[in-house]
Amino acid sequence: MVKEKFNVAVVGATGAVGQAMISMLESRDFPTDELRLLASKRSVGKKVMYKGKELEIQEANENAFAGIDIALFSAGGSVSKALAPAAVKSGAIVVDNTSAFRMDENVPLIVPEVNIERAKDHQGIIANPNCSTIQMVVALKPIFDKWGIKRIVVSTYQAVSGSGVEAVKELQAQAQAVLDGKTDFPKEILPVGSLPKHYQIAFNAIPQIDVFEDNGFTKEEMKMVNETQKIFEDSSIEVTPTAVRIGIVNGHSEAIYVETKEAFDMKDVVASLSNFEGLQVVDNIQEQEYPLATDVDGKLDVYVGRIRKDLYNEKGINMWVVADNLLKGAAWNAVQIAEYLTKTKEVWK
Amino acid sequence: MVKEKFNVAVVGATGAVGQAMISMLESRDFPTDELRLLASKRSVGKKVMYKGKELEIQEANENAFAGIDIALFSAGGSVSKALAPAAVKSGAIVVDNTSAFRMDENVPLIVPEVNIERAKDHQGIIANPNCSTIQMVVALKPIFDKWGIKRIVVSTYQAVSGSGVEAVKELQAQAQAVLDGKTDFPKEILPVGSLPKHYQIAFNAIPQIDVFEDNGFTKEEMKMVNETQKIFEDSSIEVTPTAVRIGIVNGHSEAIYVETKEAFDMKDVVASLSNFEGLQVVDNIQEQEYPLATDVDGKLDVYVGRIRKDLYNEKGINMWVVADNLLKGAAWNAVQIAEYLTKTKEVWK
Repeated sequence: MVKEKFNVAVVGATGAVGQAMISMLESRDFPTDELRLLASKRSVGKKVMYKGKELEIQEANENAFAGIDIALFSAGGSVSKALAPAAVKSGAIVVDNTSAFRMDENVPLIVPEVNIERAKDHQGIIANPNCSTIQMVVALKPIFDKWGIKRIVVSTYQAVSGSGVEAVKELQAQAQAVLDGKTDFPKEILPVGSLPKHYQIAFNAIPQIDVFEDNGFTKEEMKMVNETQKIFEDSSIEVTPTAVRIGIVNGHSEAIYVETKEAFDMKDVVASLSNFEGLQVVDNIQEQEYPLATDVDGKLDVYVGRIRKDLYNEKGINMWVVADNLLKGAAWNAVQIAEYLTKTKEVWK
Repeated sequence: MVKEKFNVAVVGATGAVGQAMISMLESRDFPTDELRLLASKRSVGKKVMYKGKELEIQEANENAFAGIDIALFSAGGSVSKALAPAAVKSGAIVVDNTSAFRMDENVPLIVPEVNIERAKDHQGIIANPNCSTIQMVVALKPIFDKWGIKRIVVSTYQAVSGSGVEAVKELQAQAQAVLDGKTDFPKEILPVGSLPKHYQIAFNAIPQIDVFEDNGFTKEEMKMVNETQKIFEDSSIEVTPTAVRIGIVNGHSEAIYVETKEAFDMKDVVASLSNFEGLQVVDNIQEQEYPLATDVDGKLDVYVGRIRKDLYNEKGINMWVVADNLLKGAAWNAVQIAEYLTKTKEVWK
């Protein structure tokens, strides 16, 4: 242990991920001395329970980080860009859950099961990858290590919780309206709050997450391409993503087709997935067992099932990968990194 | 016109697809002389409105087809196996929406936009493909014709209506129970009624449609492989499917990656999709326009959007394909075939 206890800040403490970070810190009995909850002005004064004590939300600003050892950011990219450098300047290590610094070459992009050692290279900021990337790379890591990866084709089935608390409320309100036979009800948040058009997500599938880029892919899809290559440190991996939001509250699912570089035996593939820390194989088709979004809610690990050799490509594997996007996809991955920091002398320079 | 009017039977008249067949016949002003509605014993005597007249359901049995010209079957594979030969024997042409005869080499498997000419080869029975296959091959046909198809990787987002009226009711009841905060509610139908385990479909995604085969793929997935090869008459096409049921009432969506044999220009791809009968391109990402399941409900065509060149494979195209699975995926495709029969002398031998 580097120190007995750490002063930890959570920036964006009132958001869906911020709240999940706080409950992760509590449920993991994280060695916090002070836990400082930061958010925008309008949340100042709100009370949050943590380890039996009532904590008051304070304003997130440049002066809010004095004495902080570890700052977990999840208040949007612009807040991270504005305040993460200040947190670093006051001596904190930042674990940033936004996309602000992920592709910055001086910022390690960390999924603990995959590349935690890279955290030692940090220069103050460590980035948490995007939720859809995290669960995919955990499932692919044992395959990457043994047989290499040439190609990935992935389609996602992403839950609404990734868009925040208000989006979940809108999903529920829309679902109730549809069940009541109404046709006119609020559509104000999804797919992207800041864009002009919004669609019904209840009982629907929207093939847009985040804004579009010039190449016709969305930013969410390009995160899956770029972050996967960065995390595996292999820019030759070809990723073809389609990111789709469906009317699910929590838990992302992904249908993944992966082509390896080297030939494999399927038994070895299943064995290496089964033996991989942080990955749970739920795959017994005779018993109709496979991971489901509703089953992984509140779970920390990544779940994989429907593991099957491709019908045509000798080096092709198909699988179904499910995880709690608020936990392993965000809050737990960040707290996992923070736990590593508490145990690793070399990161404290 | 072969005749002025035809005697038409609908077998399975009380099911979701049977009901859709009846309303398709009505809305298309199909040249029916008699419309005979057939179903199992327990539905006999039920009344159905058709073109302003009340029709009474009769029992589907071997003697029910006297005088019938065209018999549309959608009462499950076992009923088709038992009764389609009798219908043929009494002189009807059968259009069968079940999987009973689809892979029979003597039975044409028809999607009118793709291979209607093959209907002339019938020996009494014409098969309607599986819903998930139909919308995929309509979207791929113009690409197949111009550049050939080497490989398809497809993930589906399939609606509950494909599992029948009772499954839709269960989805709605589950959704209401979840919204009411209940945790204990009926799960009795999906993914497969006859199998021992059933899961929540409301606010969920289930990676199983139909039973599993020995190769680890489901029967639904293998239909997408085998039917696609049969319809295109090209057994070299490599199809990798993942079929997933989501909590949507009606409208299947598919994320399709396709690799052509020949090089293409993306403009030509979009143009040939746009010009293809039965296919509607809804693809303007600047305006956030793409097909949505909620928008295609009640529509006859197949809708395609998110058309984009692959990032890595020069011959790779990605697209998002949506259709009303009860209509183009079943009832409309069958009635479309029936309309062709009414206009085509050569099919009446």
